[in-house]
Amino acid sequence: MTDTNSISQLTDRVCDFSRRRDWEQFHDPKNLAMALAAEVGELNSILRWVPNSDCDEAVHETGMRQRLEAEIGDVAILLLQLCERTGIDFGEAVVAKLQTNSDRYPEAVSRGLPERPS
Amino acid sequence: MTDTNSISQLTDRVCDFSRRRDWEQFHDPKNLAMALAAEVGELNSILRWVPNSDCDEAVHETGMRQRLEAEIGDVAILLLQLCERTGIDFGEAVVAKLQTNSDRYPEAVSRGLPERPS
Amino acid sequence: MTDTNSISQLTDRVCDFSRRRDWEQFHDPKNLAMALAAEVGELNSILRWVPNSDCDEAVHETGMRQRLEAEIGDVAILLLQLCERTGIDFGEAVVAKLQTNSDRYPEAVSRGLPERPS
Amino acid sequence: MTDTNSISQLTDRVCDFSRRRDWEQFHDPKNLAMALAAEVGELNSILRWVPNSDCDEAVHETGMRQRLEAEIGDVAILLLQLCERTGIDFGEAVVAKLQTNSDRYPEAVSRGLPERPS
Repeated sequence: MTDTNSISQLTDRVCDFSRRRDWEQFHDPKNLAMALAAEVGELNSILRWVPNSDCDEAVHETGMRQRLEAEIGDVAILLLQLCERTGIDFGEAVVAKLQTNSDRYPEAVSRGLPERPS
Repeated sequence: MTDTNSISQLTDRVCDFSRRRDWEQFHDPKNLAMALAAEVGELNSILRWVPNSDCDEAVHETGMRQRLEAEIGDVAILLLQLCERTGIDFGEAVVAKLQTNSDRYPEAVSRGLPERPS
Repeated sequence: MTDTNSISQLTDRVCDFSRRRDWEQFHDPKNLAMALAAEVGELNSILRWVPNSDCDEAVHETGMRQRLEAEIGDVAILLLQLCERTGIDFGEAVVAKLQTNSDRYPEAVSRGLPERPS
Repeated sequence: MTDTNSISQLTDRVCDFSRRRDWEQFHDPKNLAMALAAEVGELNSILRWVPNSDCDEAVHETGMRQRLEAEIGDVAILLLQLCERTGIDFGEAVVAKLQTNSDRYPEAVSRGLPERPS
């Protein structure tokens, strides 16, 4: 059984899926980045006409929820593949970026203000 | 210390970062989807002029690698936030989508053929 | 002087810009699609934290407007390049897609209802 | 008859299509930016597994070409809507951005070198 909280175990599942289909040949970093754009596009497609004021509630409707979970799954799978292919550690990338952002957005001056565009 | 292999621990770190800045007010599912489009756009920006034939090697150059790790960090942070906000489990979404894809792309007929566009 | 209402004249300007820099070598359809993802990501970056209820007004603030015009320019330039490279006519693609959408969304049944996701 | 080379005439067609369905209510700048991310995602989906070395030829296959024309149509329609909604002139945005890029990438030093990421 896969421990669904473990990035390494999820990554193993994802890589095994591709290996069994001989799909690593398509999964260079460039193609994975494009595929991420495609799947994040589908995520945006689901929510594009839902106004901000409704969207926290809308994501709990059954049909919306199923589509959202499927798209989150697609994005997550591709991101794990990209990490594996490039040798970048998912969790370390998260922690490192949070540190960068902590320096960039100190709590005292950033509270309640949206991040500046990067 | 955060266990960087644990999705729940990484999620706690990410949510703590936002809470300390009172940023949850900006992080509804719609805004997070747009932010994902923005960050995946930056990932594509890095690799847009690198040809397929060079990109596995290019991602190991120092400057490229640092930018790539930063963008992967941004995408991962937003994806964890989206899961938290919507109550969708990251790991379960991965496993469920792999199951869907297994049914859609049986090994015997899919080997070496790129996935059909979804 | 370029007639800024003429797609063919704008396309000539865009192609001349690239030719003078010997950049056509980078502008195959795949790379242009990635570059479009990058620039549309920047467009999303600008508006990601602006709520629906404020955004029609927000786009008239000077700084926002300048950034928006620059990003729209980037997206338009890439789209004209993609049309030129693939031999697809921008205006004919618009008219053909409007016809497809007219068949798909008849006025009588579509009035006031958001498009279904494609 | 619409002059398919005229941005203003294409824009009129696009806006008439939306007005007849009472869809302007969904087309604020934020929603249009998300919809652009969705459609550019579909464009990336089409080309994600096609290597650079094949893609100029691949876009002439009939099925690929039809899908590509449809996606270019979708992106162009949304971009014209965004210009109309924000009061930004498509052609002027192109010319202004080319001027900015000319200053940023002088011919003498930029020839044959890919643009730096913006």
